[in-house]
Amino acid sequence: MRLANILKDGYRTVSVVSTDGSHYWPVNRLVPDFTGDMVELVQQFDAIKDKLDVETGGTRVDSAVLLAPIDQPRRNIFCVGKNYHEHAAEFQNSGFDHSAKNGEHAPEAPVVFTKPASTVIGPGAVIPRHANVTNQLDYEAELGVVIGKGGRGIRKADAMDHVFGYTVINDFTARDLQKLHRQWFIGKSLDGFCPMGPYLVTADEVDGQNIDIKCWVNDELRQNSNTSQLIFDIPTLIETLSAGIELQPGDIIATGTPAGVGIGFTPPRFLQPGDVIRIEIENVGVLVNRVGE
Amino acid sequence: MRLANILKDGYRTVSVVSTDGSHYWPVNRLVPDFTGDMVELVQQFDAIKDKLDVETGGTRVDSAVLLAPIDQPRRNIFCVGKNYHEHAAEFQNSGFDHSAKNGEHAPEAPVVFTKPASTVIGPGAVIPRHANVTNQLDYEAELGVVIGKGGRGIRKADAMDHVFGYTVINDFTARDLQKLHRQWFIGKSLDGFCPMGPYLVTADEVDGQNIDIKCWVNDELRQNSNTSQLIFDIPTLIETLSAGIELQPGDIIATGTPAGVGIGFTPPRFLQPGDVIRIEIENVGVLVNRVGE
Repeated sequence: MRLANILKDGYRTVSVVSTDGSHYWPVNRLVPDFTGDMVELVQQFDAIKDKLDVETGGTRVDSAVLLAPIDQPRRNIFCVGKNYHEHAAEFQNSGFDHSAKNGEHAPEAPVVFTKPASTVIGPGAVIPRHANVTNQLDYEAELGVVIGKGGRGIRKADAMDHVFGYTVINDFTARDLQKLHRQWFIGKSLDGFCPMGPYLVTADEVDGQNIDIKCWVNDELRQNSNTSQLIFDIPTLIETLSAGIELQPGDIIATGTPAGVGIGFTPPRFLQPGDVIRIEIENVGVLVNRVGE
Repeated sequence: MRLANILKDGYRTVSVVSTDGSHYWPVNRLVPDFTGDMVELVQQFDAIKDKLDVETGGTRVDSAVLLAPIDQPRRNIFCVGKNYHEHAAEFQNSGFDHSAKNGEHAPEAPVVFTKPASTVIGPGAVIPRHANVTNQLDYEAELGVVIGKGGRGIRKADAMDHVFGYTVINDFTARDLQKLHRQWFIGKSLDGFCPMGPYLVTADEVDGQNIDIKCWVNDELRQNSNTSQLIFDIPTLIETLSAGIELQPGDIIATGTPAGVGIGFTPPRFLQPGDVIRIEIENVGVLVNRVGE
């Protein structure tokens, strides 16, 4: 099932969207006593999903605005760094990475940092430039995993049962701040630095462990990989995080970006005002955002 | 004013506590239409503070349980690393720090990471050992700054106007995980790894920029400094964070720990089951927690 957070006539409704993306059905029309947001839908999904099976009618999506599917995460987004081999190498070689051992390319264990909820913006939203603090903006196309069933001590073998679904995330980054502040949080967390969406697609529709992920800047293909290339795969990430941190329904894990980011070039190719970043993840969606002028 | 989050007969009330800590007055008895938690009190404080001026009566605190003053932060706690010179040196020399440049002691800019709300526990609560993932537990006594008035682009000169008050924080850490995962998030974020409290003391009662901070492990004094020794002081931290991240009322900034943590010793002195950590910050409070068996 394809879910979205839709703004129409000033009202926001969590909605089911048709497979072709053309029509939507607000969940609160299908289930009148549901008044929650997307995180609450994730929590209650098993109880109400049978009522969400729609086929006809619906409202045209092009009459509305799509927001980020989870625009109010309950806590910071878990983000994984250096989780594709070729990207780990390009980042290491860029000189922007203070976290690596000398000579190390792939990390020994998942590298995790966070982005606060205030970074989340929707598809089509303009990404703020923050020109007062950075002039090294960079993109990172990532598969976002949304947790359905929470838990602690989740084993790899059971981990996929805890995945509710997937979305597209741009782990936007100010490279100068990422480097200056050593820990990556500030450089990753400026307001608006987490474009997300347009859809949250339930796990039954997508093989999250084997889908293509691509990113274009102004129609130039920059990133082109597949989630099967993750160094630490989704089950490993869930096992690692949940070993000491109880995962909660609606938690979001940005799984890392493939090679081809701006600092992977020599010299680095930072984003410029007006640049358009287009991320496409197979069967999950296409996320397009422009850098502010 | 001294505020606390008090559990009594199964009900949790945000309360005013007498200066000597002996008595409390639930805010919802002083202001009957207030039904919020501590973050909502922070948001509404200016409008209702005149009604919170209590002098007589009250309920004995020793008949109740004190919880963490902000036990449900709205987003991850902002934490600053390596923010006292002597601690930056001891950490650098310990071999546990992957974030430093060679030969660098003090960082060039604040080093910021986060801990999720799920780490917060109250005074007296037992800190989970997480023996399945770590055997290198360590303490970090820190002054916690709670933001009152939010904002972006706050200048140093105005920053203290945005401070609502102060609390005591133990930035508890699994050193092995902090090292293994490179970014510090996982090692800092296991469930229960942020003991906090007992009070949130409003800024008018404390000079947060010049107060003693001390930490004992089983009655042995380990940390003994003063917040005037911060490398990046509170106004600088607020200016730095708010430059690109809009601060929100109730945001918590753990300002960093002085020298004397377990990895500052050779060999390191990690905490053992049953160890008691006592942190005292002048005019703010005394936070005591025991490591689980």
